[in-house]
Amino acid sequence: MSDLTLTEQLTALIAARPVAPTDLEQAALLTLDALANALAGRATEPGQILQQWATATAATDAERSAFLLGSLTHILETDDLHRASVVHPGCVVVPAAWTVALREGLRGHAMLKAVLWGFEAVTRVGMAVGPAHYRIWHNTATCGPYGSAMAAAALLQLSPAATVHALGNAGTQSAGLWQFLEAGTMTKHLHAGRAAEAGVLAADLAQFGFTGPPNILEGAKGWFTAACPDADPGAVIRDPDAPWQLLQTSIKPWPSCRHTHPAIDAAHELRRRVVADAVEKIEVETYQAALDVCDRPLPQSDYEAKFSLQHCVVAALTREQVNFAAFNAEARADLADLRARVTLQLAEPYASAYPRAWGSAVTVILRSGDQLTVRRTHAKGDPEAALSPVELIAKARMLMVYGGVHEPDRLIDAILALSDDSPLPPLP
Amino acid sequence: MSDLTLTEQLTALIAARPVAPTDLEQAALLTLDALANALAGRATEPGQILQQWATATAATDAERSAFLLGSLTHILETDDLHRASVVHPGCVVVPAAWTVALREGLRGHAMLKAVLWGFEAVTRVGMAVGPAHYRIWHNTATCGPYGSAMAAAALLQLSPAATVHALGNAGTQSAGLWQFLEAGTMTKHLHAGRAAEAGVLAADLAQFGFTGPPNILEGAKGWFTAACPDADPGAVIRDPDAPWQLLQTSIKPWPSCRHTHPAIDAAHELRRRVVADAVEKIEVETYQAALDVCDRPLPQSDYEAKFSLQHCVVAALTREQVNFAAFNAEARADLADLRARVTLQLAEPYASAYPRAWGSAVTVILRSGDQLTVRRTHAKGDPEAALSPVELIAKARMLMVYGGVHEPDRLIDAILALSDDSPLPPLP
Repeated sequence: MSDLTLTEQLTALIAARPVAPTDLEQAALLTLDALANALAGRATEPGQILQQWATATAATDAERSAFLLGSLTHILETDDLHRASVVHPGCVVVPAAWTVALREGLRGHAMLKAVLWGFEAVTRVGMAVGPAHYRIWHNTATCGPYGSAMAAAALLQLSPAATVHALGNAGTQSAGLWQFLEAGTMTKHLHAGRAAEAGVLAADLAQFGFTGPPNILEGAKGWFTAACPDADPGAVIRDPDAPWQLLQTSIKPWPSCRHTHPAIDAAHELRRRVVADAVEKIEVETYQAALDVCDRPLPQSDYEAKFSLQHCVVAALTREQVNFAAFNAEARADLADLRARVTLQLAEPYASAYPRAWGSAVTVILRSGDQLTVRRTHAKGDPEAALSPVELIAKARMLMVYGGVHEPDRLIDAILALSDDSPLPPLP
Repeated sequence: MSDLTLTEQLTALIAARPVAPTDLEQAALLTLDALANALAGRATEPGQILQQWATATAATDAERSAFLLGSLTHILETDDLHRASVVHPGCVVVPAAWTVALREGLRGHAMLKAVLWGFEAVTRVGMAVGPAHYRIWHNTATCGPYGSAMAAAALLQLSPAATVHALGNAGTQSAGLWQFLEAGTMTKHLHAGRAAEAGVLAADLAQFGFTGPPNILEGAKGWFTAACPDADPGAVIRDPDAPWQLLQTSIKPWPSCRHTHPAIDAAHELRRRVVADAVEKIEVETYQAALDVCDRPLPQSDYEAKFSLQHCVVAALTREQVNFAAFNAEARADLADLRARVTLQLAEPYASAYPRAWGSAVTVILRSGDQLTVRRTHAKGDPEAALSPVELIAKARMLMVYGGVHEPDRLIDAILALSDDSPLPPLP
């Protein structure tokens, strides 16, 4: 194997893996999650701009469609996350697979296999780039083209050699800097879209014979040399028999900062056991990163409320669904009194366990003096604390309604039926 | 000025510069050169593949058209070069300006001003990235989006703020690694195309209100930090009153390695003074880089002949035109005897002057014992030894004929008439 480039080995590793029916079912759930995010993204300001642009350019080819769908998927920050690579795989892989499968007239099984392959490529490259890369470069953007190229290559049934050409030309398009964060601009969505598009372009060109560098990752003038000072190249092909990385991917249950999720989960359980009116005080134990980002007792906007542990916990304690409405002005006013009763503290074992595990405990002290505590070791939605299909479907429904979809259940059923090899449904 | 970001200062610097009629005339000549390269690029293998792809996707929006035109322009390696930035500006800026001007229904003056602006942006960023960047990154690709975005922003008459958004989102798409060189793949053309497209996309999105990072160049997570270890940020805005960088751009007179050009120029002059049959020996004096790349006494292919100083010199000594046919199998056979009489040597002042100046001397020693020497301080086509409009038009005609254009002179006239504010002619 050592004569082969890393990309050649990655391609061979992925092609050799068996695909079980349960893998396809999970791929369908992640496809549902990504598409629901895209539909919801249309209702945002950047989503409106992207749609205006798409209408003006009137381009409907797969590359452009992948760009638009990828950009829309990554706007609301409720799309999936692969922790070990710090990559959001769904917003690059699913748009690429979806648009190419549609163009080629392919059905569910081919589409879902492409999603599995794409997730595997983008996350394996992501696990190799190293933490120094992530400090400046946006992994979803930079590793994304490998995922979208692999998904498109699978659908086009490219030869191993052509797949390597596609991955090489995908990798040479890798781009995306965190600089936009400082001014809070819309660039992050553009990153996801361009990464989705880059792989489709590279694979389409490879189909016609356009060649690309076989050792784009490890070559002397390749990506690791250029942008990954502490790369771990072996990670690309490590543990070839591990479960598909798609099965290691977390799904966000709620539209708030991921650091609020274990506490929301704990508070949600407490909701079944206490009446809000009886609550005197709420204590949240968590890890430092959650305090750094989400200690916000008086959130002034929907966005700030999503980054307020205090608000998130009382929303979960009082509402059946922690949805977009749980963060709006009305909800913020309704929950002000209870929110003022929340205190946060750094505590073990959550402090030491992070980032291996994202945990929290929530304790309610009742006026009666009684108190109840619920603890969470992982963030809800991690593979270790996975959403049930019912919960995932409820989230998709919420996103689709937010995006203006009138009959979400029909669309949800059609997307999940891809694992029975159904044809792709049209998106509204 | 110091409160402004580098991108804001660059935008202001460019907008403040006067545009003289002679600037527009030179921009028309460089536009002609770039478009002639694109038309010729269609006749190559990568050009055929790109056209197959374009036909299959059927996308005709400005972004896709800029991608295709940019890729085609950079295939034959006969497009322009800005030495100080090591950027080929024409293959990214002209495609972007052309396709946006066409879409917007704009005429020659607007189009040529956009070309001036785009050349200025891409070369000023290119002069700042530093030599360490160029060792791994392909400057034309990585700096290109700034040029295409600036050209598109000019045509769309974006506000200064929107132009900065466009440049920010152009810069975050900067990509393109030299790794493809090792395997000699087709990636270089893709780089030019994607760079042309990226700026059009960023400017189009900015027109609809899509925001981007204002300090993409110098920010802590920006491009210089990410990929330019010896960046010279001040170069972006240095000498604001210097002539337009477009006027500092070299044009390649002949379809061979640039290092062969001063010797071809010298030999071309000798052709008028000696008869080839009378030649006993030919001595070429040059600099080290030319010997490293172009000492190739027995070229085995058209491509190798373009990198053979020996072949290039005898072709120039015997042929009126050093065109594509001067490198084919027939020409290689015809010139074999004379080519064997060429010797190369490192010599002053050429060795020390490089890379400030790319010079050479050619001496022919006749059977009679007489000898004649012609010296060149610069490469023909550099601003210091510029092509005349007649020479530039002859080159464009050669390229267009190679690309299958039947009436090149009509098209050439129409492109040059852009400096009289004519409408853009259709490309065949």
